[in-house]
Amino acid sequence: MAEPVNQDSETAPCPFCPGNESLTTPEVLAVRPPHLPANGPGWKLRVVPNLFPALEPGGNLQPAREGVFEKREGIGRHELVIETRDHQADLDTLSADQMGRVIRVLWSRLDSLEEDPATAYVLIFRNWGRGSGASLAHPHAQILAMPILPDTVATEVVRSVAYLRRTGHSLGQDMVKMERESGVRLVSENEQFLVVTPYAAAYPFEVALYPREQSSSFRDLTEADIPRLGALLQDVIARMKQVLHAPAYNIVLHTAPNPRSPETAALADPGDIEAAYHWHLEIVPRLPRVDGFEWGTGMFVNTTPPEEAARILREVVGK
Amino acid sequence: MAEPVNQDSETAPCPFCPGNESLTTPEVLAVRPPHLPANGPGWKLRVVPNLFPALEPGGNLQPAREGVFEKREGIGRHELVIETRDHQADLDTLSADQMGRVIRVLWSRLDSLEEDPATAYVLIFRNWGRGSGASLAHPHAQILAMPILPDTVATEVVRSVAYLRRTGHSLGQDMVKMERESGVRLVSENEQFLVVTPYAAAYPFEVALYPREQSSSFRDLTEADIPRLGALLQDVIARMKQVLHAPAYNIVLHTAPNPRSPETAALADPGDIEAAYHWHLEIVPRLPRVDGFEWGTGMFVNTTPPEEAARILREVVGK
Repeated sequence: MAEPVNQDSETAPCPFCPGNESLTTPEVLAVRPPHLPANGPGWKLRVVPNLFPALEPGGNLQPAREGVFEKREGIGRHELVIETRDHQADLDTLSADQMGRVIRVLWSRLDSLEEDPATAYVLIFRNWGRGSGASLAHPHAQILAMPILPDTVATEVVRSVAYLRRTGHSLGQDMVKMERESGVRLVSENEQFLVVTPYAAAYPFEVALYPREQSSSFRDLTEADIPRLGALLQDVIARMKQVLHAPAYNIVLHTAPNPRSPETAALADPGDIEAAYHWHLEIVPRLPRVDGFEWGTGMFVNTTPPEEAARILREVVGK
Repeated sequence: MAEPVNQDSETAPCPFCPGNESLTTPEVLAVRPPHLPANGPGWKLRVVPNLFPALEPGGNLQPAREGVFEKREGIGRHELVIETRDHQADLDTLSADQMGRVIRVLWSRLDSLEEDPATAYVLIFRNWGRGSGASLAHPHAQILAMPILPDTVATEVVRSVAYLRRTGHSLGQDMVKMERESGVRLVSENEQFLVVTPYAAAYPFEVALYPREQSSSFRDLTEADIPRLGALLQDVIARMKQVLHAPAYNIVLHTAPNPRSPETAALADPGDIEAAYHWHLEIVPRLPRVDGFEWGTGMFVNTTPPEEAARILREVVGK
């Protein structure tokens, strides 16, 4: 179930395994008994700056002109969350307690990184398995504090706010209501969250996890929500692994942009975003290679319609 | 140089090879001596409807509502251009005459398909080699007459028109001027066309071919342009193959949307599009697998900056 694993262990010691703490950048945060020193063993979870960061602190936030183009420095933070001591684990094999720790730490980093108004967006994502983009097999998530808004999220925000203004409703709320009534794209749900295959999904067996009630930011998560979110996330990963035989996959959190950032205010009124946007997790099994059609259009030919994928995922036993 | 080839020839006869004409859908168009019958051998080039079309003629063009979503029928045409009799060829190994025939036929299909106002956009693209998305090794291009505008092209059109209104200039023209002056991203050029690595390229060794003078549509191509376009396209493919050892790759034409389509008129004034948009070919060697970061943001980490890729491509001998 837990393969592909150890994709790197034959050539080098795993920098995320206990005992190898000196191979990572010093910790930003860790969960370990209070009598044990930082950057040593005994931890249950660690957050460290990426040794090969896509973005780094310091520099000039202003865009620079270069002829007809504009460029910006890669300012921000790039952290890794080492989710468990167990090199062979994956999210679905963690204990409920450990799954809760992972969610709590992601929440806490999001909350801290959004204190800086230079952070326009906190991207949280996870690559798992060969072909997902992961360069290390040990289970980990990534956190990027970015100085600009990704287009994907900006487009969702703009469309949600337009829908709110036109209808007075939250698009996410209306979508959740419709999907629960129809059931045809519903994979599983509990009291607070649900998992669906997205309408007109781009990729076979792509799924999305939404809170059932209106909630714009992952920061809105309460302590009481954490076990239910963890349980449903483990459930859907377990289903996906049964159906697709432990595929490589990506998880991406889509959450509201930082309300303290001028980039966010330039996009839409933060109050409107709070009322309109609905945070969610997108979970995409190993993407098929993009071809000329997808590259040329941004449209996708999906050989497994989301309604069929939902039926198959519903019919296997989750967790 | 011409590998990967024959990816399918061990299991089935190639439907695009001479003698196997009955394995394709009947021809839309072909180049063969006038005394020879259609759908038989003796051709130099064939255009056939795809046996497995992504879009088909007939149906209702109106969108239908489904709760908060909207859907449309997949109406249009999907044709294949069999570019040569030679199963082992690629564009760079064609004779100049044959390369000219390919371009002329693409031009002619674009011109015909745009007669129908239900065609919002004609997508012309080409997948080459294992990993490009190509399911058949025999060299071929694809043509899709689409009832809606792809987002990628719509975004380019809107930004070009905005630039025209703000500056009075064509964005493509200003970009060509800047790239010719700086030279740092210039790969090669002739009297009428140039090849550059795009500013802030998403993928290593991605290149783009532009006409040097303002020209919004591939339909603007004249008979005199064809040999020069063919020569420069063959030149850049030959360079790419030397540097990257015959990689799989995709080519996508970006051209102005059909001026006769109401979808185009709804996007921008067709006269503005003609003055603002600059057609081009995007040529992308085998895309690295997209990971969670790319998926979540629509942003790309490119390990070979376009300026370095341009220098390397300039320094090898083209064709």
